[in-house]
Amino acid sequence: MFRSHTCGELRMSHVGSVVTLAGWIQTIRKFGAITFVDLRDRYGITQLVFNESLSGQLDNNPLGREFVLQVNGKVIERSNKNASIPTGDIEIEIQSFSILNKSVTPPFTIQDDTDGGDDLRMKFRYLDLRRNPVKKNLELRYAVNRSARNYLHEHQFMDIETPFLIKSTPEGARDFVVPSRMNAGQFYALPQSPQTFKQLLMVSGYDRYYQVVKCFRDEDLRADRQPEFTQIDCEMSFVEQEDILDMFEGLIKRIFKDVKGVEYTDQVERMTWEDAMWQYGNDKPDIRFGMQIHTLKKPASVYYNKTDQSALINDAGFAVFDGAESVLAITVPSGAAYTRKQLDELTEWVKRPQIGMKGLAYIRHNEDGTVKSSIDKFYSEERLKKIAETTKANKGDIILILAGAEERTRKAMSELRLELGEQLGLRKKDEFKLLWVLDFPLFEYSEDDNRWVARHHPFTSPKPSQISTMIENDPAIKDAANYLSHPYAQIKANAYDMVLNGNEIGGGSIRIYQRELQEKMFEALGMSKEEALHKFGFLLGAFEYGAPPHGGIAFGFDRLCAILGGSESIRDFIAFPKNNSGRDVMLDAPSSIDDVQLNELNLKINLS
Amino acid sequence: MFRSHTCGELRMSHVGSVVTLAGWIQTIRKFGAITFVDLRDRYGITQLVFNESLSGQLDNNPLGREFVLQVNGKVIERSNKNASIPTGDIEIEIQSFSILNKSVTPPFTIQDDTDGGDDLRMKFRYLDLRRNPVKKNLELRYAVNRSARNYLHEHQFMDIETPFLIKSTPEGARDFVVPSRMNAGQFYALPQSPQTFKQLLMVSGYDRYYQVVKCFRDEDLRADRQPEFTQIDCEMSFVEQEDILDMFEGLIKRIFKDVKGVEYTDQVERMTWEDAMWQYGNDKPDIRFGMQIHTLKKPASVYYNKTDQSALINDAGFAVFDGAESVLAITVPSGAAYTRKQLDELTEWVKRPQIGMKGLAYIRHNEDGTVKSSIDKFYSEERLKKIAETTKANKGDIILILAGAEERTRKAMSELRLELGEQLGLRKKDEFKLLWVLDFPLFEYSEDDNRWVARHHPFTSPKPSQISTMIENDPAIKDAANYLSHPYAQIKANAYDMVLNGNEIGGGSIRIYQRELQEKMFEALGMSKEEALHKFGFLLGAFEYGAPPHGGIAFGFDRLCAILGGSESIRDFIAFPKNNSGRDVMLDAPSSIDDVQLNELNLKINLS
Repeated sequence: MFRSHTCGELRMSHVGSVVTLAGWIQTIRKFGAITFVDLRDRYGITQLVFNESLSGQLDNNPLGREFVLQVNGKVIERSNKNASIPTGDIEIEIQSFSILNKSVTPPFTIQDDTDGGDDLRMKFRYLDLRRNPVKKNLELRYAVNRSARNYLHEHQFMDIETPFLIKSTPEGARDFVVPSRMNAGQFYALPQSPQTFKQLLMVSGYDRYYQVVKCFRDEDLRADRQPEFTQIDCEMSFVEQEDILDMFEGLIKRIFKDVKGVEYTDQVERMTWEDAMWQYGNDKPDIRFGMQIHTLKKPASVYYNKTDQSALINDAGFAVFDGAESVLAITVPSGAAYTRKQLDELTEWVKRPQIGMKGLAYIRHNEDGTVKSSIDKFYSEERLKKIAETTKANKGDIILILAGAEERTRKAMSELRLELGEQLGLRKKDEFKLLWVLDFPLFEYSEDDNRWVARHHPFTSPKPSQISTMIENDPAIKDAANYLSHPYAQIKANAYDMVLNGNEIGGGSIRIYQRELQEKMFEALGMSKEEALHKFGFLLGAFEYGAPPHGGIAFGFDRLCAILGGSESIRDFIAFPKNNSGRDVMLDAPSSIDDVQLNELNLKINLS
Repeated sequence: MFRSHTCGELRMSHVGSVVTLAGWIQTIRKFGAITFVDLRDRYGITQLVFNESLSGQLDNNPLGREFVLQVNGKVIERSNKNASIPTGDIEIEIQSFSILNKSVTPPFTIQDDTDGGDDLRMKFRYLDLRRNPVKKNLELRYAVNRSARNYLHEHQFMDIETPFLIKSTPEGARDFVVPSRMNAGQFYALPQSPQTFKQLLMVSGYDRYYQVVKCFRDEDLRADRQPEFTQIDCEMSFVEQEDILDMFEGLIKRIFKDVKGVEYTDQVERMTWEDAMWQYGNDKPDIRFGMQIHTLKKPASVYYNKTDQSALINDAGFAVFDGAESVLAITVPSGAAYTRKQLDELTEWVKRPQIGMKGLAYIRHNEDGTVKSSIDKFYSEERLKKIAETTKANKGDIILILAGAEERTRKAMSELRLELGEQLGLRKKDEFKLLWVLDFPLFEYSEDDNRWVARHHPFTSPKPSQISTMIENDPAIKDAANYLSHPYAQIKANAYDMVLNGNEIGGGSIRIYQRELQEKMFEALGMSKEEALHKFGFLLGAFEYGAPPHGGIAFGFDRLCAILGGSESIRDFIAFPKNNSGRDVMLDAPSSIDDVQLNELNLKINLS
C-alpha cells in the first residue's frame, strides 16, 4: 500500500504516530517558509505541514493543485483546530514526500460550488466526479442499492441475472437492437425491462426474484431521460395485490431508514387512479400539500361515478364557462392578498404554450367576508359565495378557475397547483410523502390505430371481477367516437404505482397467468394470433405448464436516488450519464465504425 | 398470500395447525380411495393426504403432474416418516383444495435425472429451471454473488454502475455494436469489460470500486463460451501487486467459507508464468496433483534462464530426439504396471489431431530396479536410469516422453498430464486448490502483423524495473525471425491470474497511470498517435490530471460458480444461456427486424 491510513482517519489518539498518507492536493497555503497542504482522498481531508527544512525540496519539486502526493510524517496536535472536519484536531508534520503524479491545471477547480458548467462537467466527468456533491450522490446511490439488496435478501428474494441480448418485440417504446454477426441479417434487442424473464422465473418456481438491472429504451430523450437506466426489478409468486403493497412499502421504508435515517412509520396512503385524477389532475400527485381540484363542470363521459358542481355556474350567460367541456377550481390559502400584478403573472403563466389555457378567472374571498371576482359581471355575490363554500375557500383565500377541454384543463390545473405549491414553499425537499396509486385503467385508447393499448404493459391482469368482461366482449371498437362506451374502457387493472413527492418511483401489477386471458389481451392490442405466437410464443407456452399467480414491481433506481438526494435531475446520480442527444461527450460515443466491422455484420449505412 | 406456509417449512411443532399451502404437484399416488400428493415449491416438498371424503371432488377435478394447487388442511404426524426430507415427519390432511392452474404433460419429467436432452432443455428452459440440480446451481450463484458483495462492502469497495452503451474500440475481441437512431450512421458498442471506466473512477478518487456486471464479446463461440457473461469487476487505488493478491485471496477464501463451508486456511500458492509453463506446460496449472514436466531438451531461445537435460539424451543416434526442438518427460506414479494395451491407447491419445504428436516413448522403472524402454535400442540401461533419476521416477513408475516443436510439445504434455491426472483420480471435484500465476510477459508477438500485442490488455503496466526498457527502446521489430531477441520480448507485466483447479477464475494487473507510458504502450501495439487519441483520448486526458497508482482484477463469475458447483459447464449456472451459435432457442433470438426499424436506424441488410 502507498499509505498506512486514509485522509479521513487520523484523530487525537494517533498523535505521535508516524504515518504514510496518499491523496490529491486540495489546497496549498504558504506562510513564510512553512507550507500547509490539504490532502484529499475519498475518505476525507488531512492537513499537512511542510516545515522550513523541506523548503529546498519543495522549491525543486513544486506542488500544485490535484497533484497526487505521498507523504510520510508524524501526527501532531493542531494549535488551530478545525471543528468542521473530523480530522481537524490533528495535522501531519511532514518528514518526506514524493509526487506520485502531476496534474495540469483542471478546467474547473474541484470544489463544491464550481463545476465549470454542464458541457465542461460532462466532457471532464472524471474531474467532476471528484467534486464532493457528486461523490455524495454516488455514495447515496450505493447506500440505496445495498439497503434494497439487504431487505430483499432478508425476505427470501433471489438475485437472478436475466439476459441482455434478447428478442426484439417492440410494444410501446423502441428497442435498441444489436446486429448478430453469427446469424446474418438478424438482430438481438436490448431489454426494455426483464419483464417476461421474471415471469418465466415465477413459472419455474423461483418464488421471489430481484435484480438491480440496466434497461434500455430508444426514445427521443426528454429532459432527464436516459437511454440506459437502472431498475430495482422484483417479482413474487402466490401473491395478491395487497401482499405486494405490503412488501414494497417495507422496502422503501427500509431504504428511508438506512439511507436517510428517517423512520417512516405512517401507513402509506392509497388513492385510486380516478381519485388522483379527479382531485389532483395527475396520476402521481404530490400529497405533501392539499389544494385539491374542485370540478365545477365536466363532460358526462368521464369520471361518470363522480358528480360535478355545474349547477353553481350554469345559466349565468357566461359564454366561456358555457362553451367549455370542463371548469375546474383550486383554492389558494391566503391568496386573497395577491396583487393585480401577481394575478397577471399567474394568468400569463397559464397562457404559456406548455400550459395552453386561454385565461384564468379568480374569486377573492376577502378577509371581511365579501367576495370580489373577475367574473362578477356574470355571477351574483351569492352565487360566488356558494362557489367559495364548495371549494372550501376560507376568508383570505382566493379561488382560481380554469375552463376548457377536459383533458388539457385538468392537466393545466395540476401544473398550476404544483407551481403554486412551489411558490408557497409547500413542496419541502426534506419532507417525504409516499402514496400508492391503485386501480389504473387496463387500457388506453389509441386514436391513431383505433384500438386499445396497454396502459401498463400487456402482461398486466384486469381486476379478477372484470376478467369475464374482458373474455366475453369483442375488443374491436366499432364506434370510434364513443370508444368510452366500449366495455373495455371501464376495465380496471390490478396495477399500482408508488409515488414519492409527486414522482412515480415504482410501478407494477399482478400479472396474467392464464394462456387464454393472455391471448385475449394480445388480441385486444391488435395482435394477430400469428404475431402473438411469433413474439411471445415462449410465454404463452410457459403458461400451459402450471404458471402460478404472480405479480411484481419495478422501481426507477436513478429517480429514486435523485429524490432521496433532494434533486430533480437523475443525471447527477449516474456516474457516466449521456446528454439529451444520447451522446457520451467524454467518450465521444456513439461514433462511426469501420467498413470491416460493417461488412462482418452484413450491414450498410443508408443515410438517404 | 395464497399460502400461510411454504412447502419446506412445516415440522412436528406445527402438528394440529390448519395451514394453507400452494405449489406444484410433484407426484400423485393412489391407495384405494386415499390419494397422496407431493406438493413442491422453491423451499421444499410437503406430503398431502386426500382422504376418501374428497374422492368425489378429485374425480370431478382430476389432478396432474405440475398442476398448480392450493390446499387447506391440518398438519398431522406421519405414521410413515421420511427422514430424507426436512418436512418428512408431517403431512397435511386436506380439507379443501383449489386448482390454480393446470399443466399439459411436460416434454420431460421434472426430476433430478431426467432432462430430455440438451435441445429440449434449452427450448423449455422454464421447465428445466424447475429441476433441482439447476435450481441448486442458481442458488449457489446467488450465494456467491451475495458473499462477494458482503466481503467487498466490508472492505470499503463501492458498487458503481458503468455504462453499457459506450464507444467501439475493438482491440482483441470484436465488439457487439448498437446502431444509434438519434445519431445517424453511428454506433455504440457494448462493453467487453468496464476497464477504462473503472480506471477513470480511480482517477476520480473513488479508491475502491466493484461491480457484478455483464460484459459482451462477439467471438466465434468455442464450447462453453457465452456472448454475454458476468464479471466480478474490482479496482483499487494506491496499491501494489502484493496488496491486490492479499485482498482477493481474502475474497475467494470468504466465498469458499460462505458458500461451501470450506475454511481455506492455506496460503495461496504462487508461481511465475515461466515456472508454470516450464513445469506444467500451461499458464493455469492444476496443482491438485504433481507430475511436473521435465524438460530433457529445449531450444536456446525460450526459457533461457532454465537449463535442460539434453546431455542425457544427446549423441545417442536417435533421430527422433535429435531432430526435435524439444523433448519432454513426465513420470506417472505406479505407471510401470501399464499393459501394452494401455500404452497403445495413450499413444493413440497423443496422436489425435487435437494433440498432434507423432508418438509416445516410455521408460518403465520396474519394481525390481530394472528399466525397460521403447527406446532402449538407442539408450543404455545406465543412461535410462539417469533419465529416471532426473525425472524422479521411483521403482514402479513409468516415464512418458514426447518430442517435437517446443510450443506444441509442451502443450501436448500439459494435456497428457491432465488426462493422466483424470484417469488416476487425482483431480478431485471436492478438493479446491488455488494458485496465483505471476509475472506474465507484457507482450506477445503477432506474426500476422509483425508487431507486439498486449498479452493482458493495453492498460497493464510493466514491472517498475522494466519501465525504462519500454520507454527507451523502439518497439518496431526489424528482424521478425529473431523477435525474441527484441528487448520487449523480455518485459514482464505487473499482472496476475488466479487459478482454481486448473481454471483461470480471475485475472488483473497493476495499471499504467502515466500518460507517457500509456502512449508508448499504444505505440508498441501499432497505434498511430491519432488513432490512440481518437480511441482513448479521454483516458490519456484523465492521466494528466493526477491519476493515482492503481490496479485491479476481474473474476469470471460464471466459471467461478461452475467450478464451485463441481461442473465444467458454465451454461448450467446461467438462468437463460445461449447455445453455441449464440442463439436463445427459447426466445428464438436473434431474429429479423422489420423495415421500419431498419429505416429508422439508417441501415440496410447487405447479405451479398
